[in-house]
Amino acid sequence: MRSIPPGGCAVVIGASGGIGAALVAGLLEDEGFGTVVALARRFTASADGRLHRGPIDVTDEASIAQAAEALPRPVRLVIVATGALHGGGLQPEKTYRALDAAALMESYRVNTVGPALVAKHLLPRLAPAGRCVFAALSARVGSIGDNRAGGWHSYRASKAGLNMILRNLAIEVVRRTPDTLCVGLHPGTVDTGLSQPFQRNVAPGKLFSPAHSAARLLQVLDGLVPGDNGNVLAWDGATIPP
Amino acid sequence: MRSIPPGGCAVVIGASGGIGAALVAGLLEDEGFGTVVALARRFTASADGRLHRGPIDVTDEASIAQAAEALPRPVRLVIVATGALHGGGLQPEKTYRALDAAALMESYRVNTVGPALVAKHLLPRLAPAGRCVFAALSARVGSIGDNRAGGWHSYRASKAGLNMILRNLAIEVVRRTPDTLCVGLHPGTVDTGLSQPFQRNVAPGKLFSPAHSAARLLQVLDGLVPGDNGNVLAWDGATIPP
Repeated sequence: MRSIPPGGCAVVIGASGGIGAALVAGLLEDEGFGTVVALARRFTASADGRLHRGPIDVTDEASIAQAAEALPRPVRLVIVATGALHGGGLQPEKTYRALDAAALMESYRVNTVGPALVAKHLLPRLAPAGRCVFAALSARVGSIGDNRAGGWHSYRASKAGLNMILRNLAIEVVRRTPDTLCVGLHPGTVDTGLSQPFQRNVAPGKLFSPAHSAARLLQVLDGLVPGDNGNVLAWDGATIPP
Repeated sequence: MRSIPPGGCAVVIGASGGIGAALVAGLLEDEGFGTVVALARRFTASADGRLHRGPIDVTDEASIAQAAEALPRPVRLVIVATGALHGGGLQPEKTYRALDAAALMESYRVNTVGPALVAKHLLPRLAPAGRCVFAALSARVGSIGDNRAGGWHSYRASKAGLNMILRNLAIEVVRRTPDTLCVGLHPGTVDTGLSQPFQRNVAPGKLFSPAHSAARLLQVLDGLVPGDNGNVLAWDGATIPP
């Protein structure tokens, strides 16, 4: 990435997911990063050249703190690529009659609180000067202004909460480190387990491979400008309104 | 209210709070409602003329279902006036370094999941034709677009989540009952326990009495138009962006 000083560390959290793994692969192709740290729940600590792997559970703050301490410095880029739409008791709601307290809470725990705790422990590790980026995968359906179809209450509300947290981080962090930007990312509809049950509604040519989405997202991150701080950007660079 | 057919039932949830109690008082002055049902955690079932009181705990779905079943029909207006900013383990965060998983979750449980569960059980009780309104107290600080100061992460994110839920409800409900509107309300900064620790930052003349805020909010609800559906409106009728 031309906008980020070379030699630093890039971290992907949720690196075993479709998009997370593709982001790691894309970052390894970029000689600008001295180390690429891939963290996922089921990973164990290992190193293979510039690629470091390690465990993290974003629902367990102690695990996040431990992963943060092990990071090579300076950290230049953090991408939180965790998130859940279905499975483990989650099922996207088609109507408000299906609202369920446990599902709402679980979705928030994974999609909002997880990235917030990652920010708490990783933002203080970012380099104090020069461009750094903290990004989290959000989703277009997390936009209230863009909501036309309704439904998916738990997921949508958790992503709206995440977008608020990202805006808050952006406002706070830029005060001390004006070169650090915090953004959300909409990866498009990507051919992964998360989108699998919903792919038949996707227009032809709009179902991305993880590699394609990851490449576009890394382009977007490289091209960030100060005015993007706190916003959610789509794979094509478009700003998604709150 | 001139916009709502007379003779129906108005329900206030969180009726023991400063704004909730003032809303109940304001609604009782309005002869248009045949019954005003005031629900709060510490209330016991009683009736005094048009005023009915009863218990509800928005963190307990069974309690919400029970309260919903006891409502006189037709229900025309529901206002959810519950919410928490501090107390009970909640403390508005001044920095991301204070982020706490339990506080984030508790704030969401009270401010987002509670009103969502109320909607689940009370929306089906609204009259099938003629203007009905489902409203919940949100807050200007729940607006991502309007966020300039940052901080208050748990509260802000929970209100952003609530605003998404309200937008979702609005989209779904209007399909079957086009005369029913769902909105969020920003009451201003009101002289209640919720705002008490933060009142010294309020400009002179901008700290409202509960009665003043409630009167303005009821005016706003009476003046709703279809284009307001799913939006958050302030005490002065202004639309607050997501």
